Amino acid sequence: MLKNDLVLRAAKGEFVERTPVWVMRQAGRILPEYRAVRAQVKDFKALVKHPELVCEVTLQPVDILGVDAAIIFSDILVIPEAMGLNYEMVEAKGPLFPNTIKTEQDIDALRIDNMEEALDYVVQSIHLTKRALNDRVPLIGFAGAPWTIFAYMIEGKGSKTFSEPKKFLYTQPEWSQKLLQKITIATISYLKAQIKAGADMVQVFDSWAGILSYDLYKKFALPCIQQICDAITEVPVIVFAKDAHFMLGDFKNTSADVIGLDWTMDIQAARNLYGETKTLQGNADPCMLYADLPTIRKETTKMLQAFGSQRHIANLGHGVYPDISADHVKCLIETVQTYKW
Amino acid sequence: MLKNDLVLRAAKGEFVERTPVWVMRQAGRILPEYRAVRAQVKDFKALVKHPELVCEVTLQPVDILGVDAAIIFSDILVIPEAMGLNYEMVEAKGPLFPNTIKTEQDIDALRIDNMEEALDYVVQSIHLTKRALNDRVPLIGFAGAPWTIFAYMIEGKGSKTFSEPKKFLYTQPEWSQKLLQKITIATISYLKAQIKAGADMVQVFDSWAGILSYDLYKKFALPCIQQICDAITEVPVIVFAKDAHFMLGDFKNTSADVIGLDWTMDIQAARNLYGETKTLQGNADPCMLYADLPTIRKETTKMLQAFGSQRHIANLGHGVYPDISADHVKCLIETVQTYKW
Repeated sequence: MLKNDLVLRAAKGEFVERTPVWVMRQAGRILPEYRAVRAQVKDFKALVKHPELVCEVTLQPVDILGVDAAIIFSDILVIPEAMGLNYEMVEAKGPLFPNTIKTEQDIDALRIDNMEEALDYVVQSIHLTKRALNDRVPLIGFAGAPWTIFAYMIEGKGSKTFSEPKKFLYTQPEWSQKLLQKITIATISYLKAQIKAGADMVQVFDSWAGILSYDLYKKFALPCIQQICDAITEVPVIVFAKDAHFMLGDFKNTSADVIGLDWTMDIQAARNLYGETKTLQGNADPCMLYADLPTIRKETTKMLQAFGSQRHIANLGHGVYPDISADHVKCLIETVQTYKW
Repeated sequence: MLKNDLVLRAAKGEFVERTPVWVMRQAGRILPEYRAVRAQVKDFKALVKHPELVCEVTLQPVDILGVDAAIIFSDILVIPEAMGLNYEMVEAKGPLFPNTIKTEQDIDALRIDNMEEALDYVVQSIHLTKRALNDRVPLIGFAGAPWTIFAYMIEGKGSKTFSEPKKFLYTQPEWSQKLLQKITIATISYLKAQIKAGADMVQVFDSWAGILSYDLYKKFALPCIQQICDAITEVPVIVFAKDAHFMLGDFKNTSADVIGLDWTMDIQAARNLYGETKTLQGNADPCMLYADLPTIRKETTKMLQAFGSQRHIANLGHGVYPDISADHVKCLIETVQTYKW
């Protein structure tokens, strides 16, 4: 029995006494305690693969910031690696894949039957973290959405336009469907393994949703999201498709429990659209945390009032920036947790 | 008297026999003829400051691709330079400002009274180009929107998040207004100089509009756009605020003649919103031009039908990518120009 299950109740549309809050990709980055752990291993990937350290950095935001949920410390790119496409995390530059997907043979060579073994380090991390959390707050598991994973597997690195994977959709629609389908199946196995290990909820991050047009997203990306949401019946599912303002209407017809909004999205319009059918998550501008504490309190309160007291999980509209002071993040969290409805 | 004034008539909401088309930042990039000219000078900036060569590359897309308007070859960052903030264009990396705006003194030091002289090379380029065009098609002038220029002046380079200028808005709102106001005044002088030299229409590019929230855009960026649109009464004004889906409602109340849509924006929703009050420009996905010719024809036709026969200037939803084949761009242009309503 969780001592604080506000996030789960909000996700399911059950009554909450106050709005729950967590902060996207909260572990690491802003906390000196995180950087101390990070310094014990040679690189980011070594940390992700080290269950004891993952457990430690996953708990830090719960202990230090007082958030209402933990999210397992990991990376969305563990999936391509488990499928056979290795990557490096280049300091200050981001991911780099020495090999990318170019041909149908490349797609055929990818494995999807070994997720639980290949990603056993995540499963072990979740086991340890659940034990260490001792039912204080829920633990969120996560995966990248298939389109975003596809984008990295073809582009091989970060990009402003991701024109290579988009070109692939336009020029190789059948191979694209085949690859997206393989990623979707692998992702479902992976999320189910996380849930079996103890994840109380899962989030699907579609970080590069916003560079697709409505037609491309609907044809290629949405069916994968739908398949994942339909397959995960054990726990609530959050879908966060950054910048995909054009998909909010179609997400209504998925079985997602929670829809994440980025800070450009109109809260009232989303509320009117979804009514009582979905919980909403978000959506403070990460840059707002650069402001002084009175401004953070004022902006956070404004956000709370716009979402209303129920069916809302307070969060940023994207990940916290690394140079934000922990005190400013705490101010947002405390403002949410002490707000009197 | 222009021989082909379709773009101007469409911008003003007058009847057109067929939809006009141009391609954003069309000069250069995709044409071997451009690269040949570019090779004659040491770098991009040298080209921008060379009126004869600017004239030559501005005309290339008219001669080779057959577009219905020319757009003067230049860069949005000529304004900060004219104000006293120099930049370099680093090959394959983009702009880099050795000095950025950090203090109120930095803002006070910027000049705004010398635009016509400081940007005389653009004025000369427009004179030459108008003569060379010989009234075949209109010539479009342009400037960056004040928020986008502000973003570069503070960040000093391209960025995924532009967190520095956003931090500036949150932490120094008064200095921000002061700087935006100086940029706005400089931009209006610059656009008026372009019009006096012969520009038949102007476009304001707000390339980084989409990283602001509605509240920030409304408070800081929109008033500048409004001021520019109100000041430019001589020729039609196009406002293109990329990714600013959340501003379409407010743009209705500006005196812009044309609103540019990126490829994530819903054509029908924009049409319903604006009715007969604005012409729309856009909005094919630049990546669509990677597809085969039958797909390009099909997608272009679908776009034309969604916009309808009047009050539409066909274009991409953002700039053409450098590795797109000229034949594919021509296919889009010919599909628009031969479509029978």
